[in-house]
Amino acid sequence: MPQTLQLINPMDMHLHLREGKLLESVLPFTTQAFSAAVVMPNLKIPITTTALVNDYKEHIISLSSATFTPLMTLYLTPSLTREELLLARDAGIRILKLYPKGATTGSENGVKDILCEKTLQVFAIAEELGFILSIHGESNGFCMEREYEFLPIFAYIAEHFPKLRIIIEHMSDRRSLEMIEKYENLYATLTLHHITLNLDDVCGGMLNPHLFCKPMLKSRKDQQALLEAALKAHPKISFGSDSAPHLESAKLSSKGAAGIFSAPVLLPALTQLFESHNALDSLQSFVSDRAIEIYQLQDFTQKSITLEKIQYNVPERIDTPLGAIVPLFAGQNLSWRIKE
Amino acid sequence: MPQTLQLINPMDMHLHLREGKLLESVLPFTTQAFSAAVVMPNLKIPITTTALVNDYKEHIISLSSATFTPLMTLYLTPSLTREELLLARDAGIRILKLYPKGATTGSENGVKDILCEKTLQVFAIAEELGFILSIHGESNGFCMEREYEFLPIFAYIAEHFPKLRIIIEHMSDRRSLEMIEKYENLYATLTLHHITLNLDDVCGGMLNPHLFCKPMLKSRKDQQALLEAALKAHPKISFGSDSAPHLESAKLSSKGAAGIFSAPVLLPALTQLFESHNALDSLQSFVSDRAIEIYQLQDFTQKSITLEKIQYNVPERIDTPLGAIVPLFAGQNLSWRIKE
Repeated sequence: MPQTLQLINPMDMHLHLREGKLLESVLPFTTQAFSAAVVMPNLKIPITTTALVNDYKEHIISLSSATFTPLMTLYLTPSLTREELLLARDAGIRILKLYPKGATTGSENGVKDILCEKTLQVFAIAEELGFILSIHGESNGFCMEREYEFLPIFAYIAEHFPKLRIIIEHMSDRRSLEMIEKYENLYATLTLHHITLNLDDVCGGMLNPHLFCKPMLKSRKDQQALLEAALKAHPKISFGSDSAPHLESAKLSSKGAAGIFSAPVLLPALTQLFESHNALDSLQSFVSDRAIEIYQLQDFTQKSITLEKIQYNVPERIDTPLGAIVPLFAGQNLSWRIKE
Repeated sequence: MPQTLQLINPMDMHLHLREGKLLESVLPFTTQAFSAAVVMPNLKIPITTTALVNDYKEHIISLSSATFTPLMTLYLTPSLTREELLLARDAGIRILKLYPKGATTGSENGVKDILCEKTLQVFAIAEELGFILSIHGESNGFCMEREYEFLPIFAYIAEHFPKLRIIIEHMSDRRSLEMIEKYENLYATLTLHHITLNLDDVCGGMLNPHLFCKPMLKSRKDQQALLEAALKAHPKISFGSDSAPHLESAKLSSKGAAGIFSAPVLLPALTQLFESHNALDSLQSFVSDRAIEIYQLQDFTQKSITLEKIQYNVPERIDTPLGAIVPLFAGQNLSWRIKE
């Protein structure tokens, strides 16, 4: 009998499910492994209204097993009204997602001037109505400094809206750790790739476009500091994969798409990682408890996932009707797999 | 009549010409524009003996017009003997090229322990016989810090072999500038791409594999500092393109090749760059005079190149019998071109 490990209600607090045939192809990797996932709203037509959220949610549910809860997000624009936000709250939407304009895939409709009066008004209403504000926090400066340069904006929002819970999404810079310590209402999500990889994996040897993502993978020191925070299940950090599928053809291009498709390997790879650092005791907290605390989650599908210690070779490609997608750790062996 | 500019004896002090059909395809871009070029020895079978250098040189000359001088380099290995170095000197070879093992394309046969006794002996003989030592100076550390981490090795060699002229090849880090100021016998070459681009051009937006190279393009600050050194024709820096052709298929791969093919655009792009910074007065020094001084060049083909201010669209691809190569600035307009 192989060694096994039980995880109760794993949560992926940052996920890209896309739409159409791609959605159908990638969704099962998440529904089989997670109780719930925070679904990003940056579709080709961004999900900027409650009506669009409801359509998207219904579509996801129609494709899911009964044991999965999509936690929907509303794409924040400065023109969001109190009426729309009340509608959203009543529809059960808890999270607003803010993209700085142009920061990443699907951010063309993002916010240009984050601290302008209209956006601040949206933050005030969000605070009053109890929303969580999730931010892709990057400046438009030099790529390795963008998250750091954005930290003053996090500080400003945290100070001026003390009851608003704010999330530094996919934290990538070790200097962000100090910020979540400093501001009570500031939290973060952390991906698998930012704690297992650094810029050397992208371009230290040959160039690996499959590991190109935003925010950029940073230095070894950043990776190490973020990994340490994960291994101790830092109370202000929840796991969010930022799994972001792109077709292989879009990755191997002269304009390569940013994003790492990690959904097929998340729990096995996390288990292997935590085991290798003698931190398996923290895994349940990192992949579930922290999210439940930080997001005050109540209505989600109860689920128990069993991992068994059996070596597993990650496929080189995941085929979809639109073409192949190369997953994180393609072709590598993992020492754990999810028990079917 | 368009505006014209005369350059006397342009020199490319760092060039990859490859071999076979690729050599035949890329060589004309250099022979039409430069009097001479330093030809790198990192072929599939590295050019580690005088006999191999002579064969390679003869082959290049057989394919060249009469108005081009290849300045040949010998691939440095710790097993180079005094006899071999005497042979090399008598054959007119002036430059030894040192690659740290594994640092870049074709460095598998490079030197593992650069300050080991055998390599130091080679340096001593090189100093005695008047060779120039050109070094790809990168540690095996984090990709953005490799040149900086290598600087102590440059310092050690410069101090211990004061009569040996040492070249920091394709300088990419602004902190290297202090080193060439500090050590009299330490010099550098500088590429077009390290003074016109930075890491943001590779991965600040979408990923552009055609701009992936070693040493990595660094920060905007590095680019700016290196550009300033070029624009004033820093007396210890000569131009060396590091033009490095790779087939498009090898660039757009999950293991993308490192190197930028700049040979088709060098003099026009440099002229445009220097003009845009009101530094055309320094261009002759940067692309020729400095090299003649630093390398004490005497025997090269006298050549005058005329550039005319006529807008020119850089082709998207250069076709070769092996496949297409994407040049630097593909598809972009340049405001100068070489007069035929």
